[in-house]
Amino acid sequence: MNKDRENIVGMAACLLACGVNPSKTILFQQSTISQHTELAWILSCLCTMPRLECLPQWKEKSQKYQEPGVGLFIYPILQAADILLYKATEVPVGEDQVHHLELARHLAKAFNRKYGVIFPRPVEIIGEVNRIKSLRDPNSKMSKSEANPMGRIELTDSSDEIYEKIKKSVTDFTPHISYDSDQRPGVSNLIQIHAALTGQSCEQIVQESAGLDKVAYKSRLAEIVNETLAPIKTETARLLQDKHYISTVMEQGRDKANMIASKTYSQVKQLVGFS
Amino acid sequence: MNKDRENIVGMAACLLACGVNPSKTILFQQSTISQHTELAWILSCLCTMPRLECLPQWKEKSQKYQEPGVGLFIYPILQAADILLYKATEVPVGEDQVHHLELARHLAKAFNRKYGVIFPRPVEIIGEVNRIKSLRDPNSKMSKSEANPMGRIELTDSSDEIYEKIKKSVTDFTPHISYDSDQRPGVSNLIQIHAALTGQSCEQIVQESAGLDKVAYKSRLAEIVNETLAPIKTETARLLQDKHYISTVMEQGRDKANMIASKTYSQVKQLVGFS
Repeated sequence: MNKDRENIVGMAACLLACGVNPSKTILFQQSTISQHTELAWILSCLCTMPRLECLPQWKEKSQKYQEPGVGLFIYPILQAADILLYKATEVPVGEDQVHHLELARHLAKAFNRKYGVIFPRPVEIIGEVNRIKSLRDPNSKMSKSEANPMGRIELTDSSDEIYEKIKKSVTDFTPHISYDSDQRPGVSNLIQIHAALTGQSCEQIVQESAGLDKVAYKSRLAEIVNETLAPIKTETARLLQDKHYISTVMEQGRDKANMIASKTYSQVKQLVGFS
Repeated sequence: MNKDRENIVGMAACLLACGVNPSKTILFQQSTISQHTELAWILSCLCTMPRLECLPQWKEKSQKYQEPGVGLFIYPILQAADILLYKATEVPVGEDQVHHLELARHLAKAFNRKYGVIFPRPVEIIGEVNRIKSLRDPNSKMSKSEANPMGRIELTDSSDEIYEKIKKSVTDFTPHISYDSDQRPGVSNLIQIHAALTGQSCEQIVQESAGLDKVAYKSRLAEIVNETLAPIKTETARLLQDKHYISTVMEQGRDKANMIASKTYSQVKQLVGFS
């Protein structure tokens, strides 16, 4: 099995181990469904340049490059296609994706107005937990695309790696534990992670941690993260022993996704005049 | 048959009537081959914003809109995909497309360097005849997307319409016929059309037209255009009686195109890590 295939199978195994249930959820590899880029092309013809140029994520990310890529610029259009192709009505996203959802709504409306009403209005669902931040920079989100792997906890990290990453996470010079996302973003991010994993409120966690200094608190949190991830890691390892099962899940997902995508896209083609 | 289907069949009939030979040429509808947009997406991730922003056609066309469209901006990437998907080595284009061919070469090189060499270097073939200009504005090219249909001769125009369009074409106040594309762009464009249809040189045409004033020359040219288009129109009409034949040609074209496109794109997917 080559590296790419291994990555895809590994990611699928992690998702299944986290509890994604393939009998309720269609799990598939986006690039196996050609209609994503086909619909994205059509949507790009309904989108103006200023609409993409003013998206906060573009503004922020494009600044990092002297010559930013076109893929980065038009990525929100592909996201809109990902949503509209399945006529999604509710989309679970982080707060940083709210503007992209807005774009998807705009493009749905623009298509419906120009060619005929087929797309419902997709609405974001934002989880209760705030977006987890990078362990290296508590002002940026924790991200798989961050250059430094110390900023993120990966589901495949060993217990020791997780312990190291949390221990070395950027906080501040105040020793005790308190929640204040403005003044103490690093510590507050750790408390957020803690709250997300245990279901406690941030206040409860602060109370419970009275008397602990940051070093002790970080150890405690690493323990909780490792305890939470242990069954997921075990299940991932078990699933990776059965690659045939994972392949079957992915193939069935692809076939189900393809059925929906083909149906929507054939409506789109009809309306646009491609067929 | 709906309007869109009728347009597609009509266009195919015109191309066949002009002499496109389906046993030598693969004639197909681009939107039936999903790999065009799939490859375009991948190429967009290899293209920087400044590279598209500096293309002369974008600069010119985007000026016409307050909020230009993303489709117009990224269209040259789709063109590159159209070329690279078939591993084309020579591409017949007008001079206005030379920069887009350059982009296709750049993207081929960028892909080959990053993922592995699969794309040959596509080179433009520019015909001997200069680009024919609009009959309403001899400084712009004759174009099917020009708002005013009086600017262009369509293969489906009647003899009377063609006569009218040429008679009303924008020229100048000098009565005699002479070739000078800078000082007399309107008349020179008519002479170019004439030259393209008869195979004569512009000098020969000017000599032959000595003594004719512009009104008489325009009548003469309209006659030549109508004579040239007559057999094409007859053949188009004949083909449109046999829509089954046209459909068969298009289906066979699609299947042949799909074979090549699938082969190239599966190599691309393999190299990029999609499969």
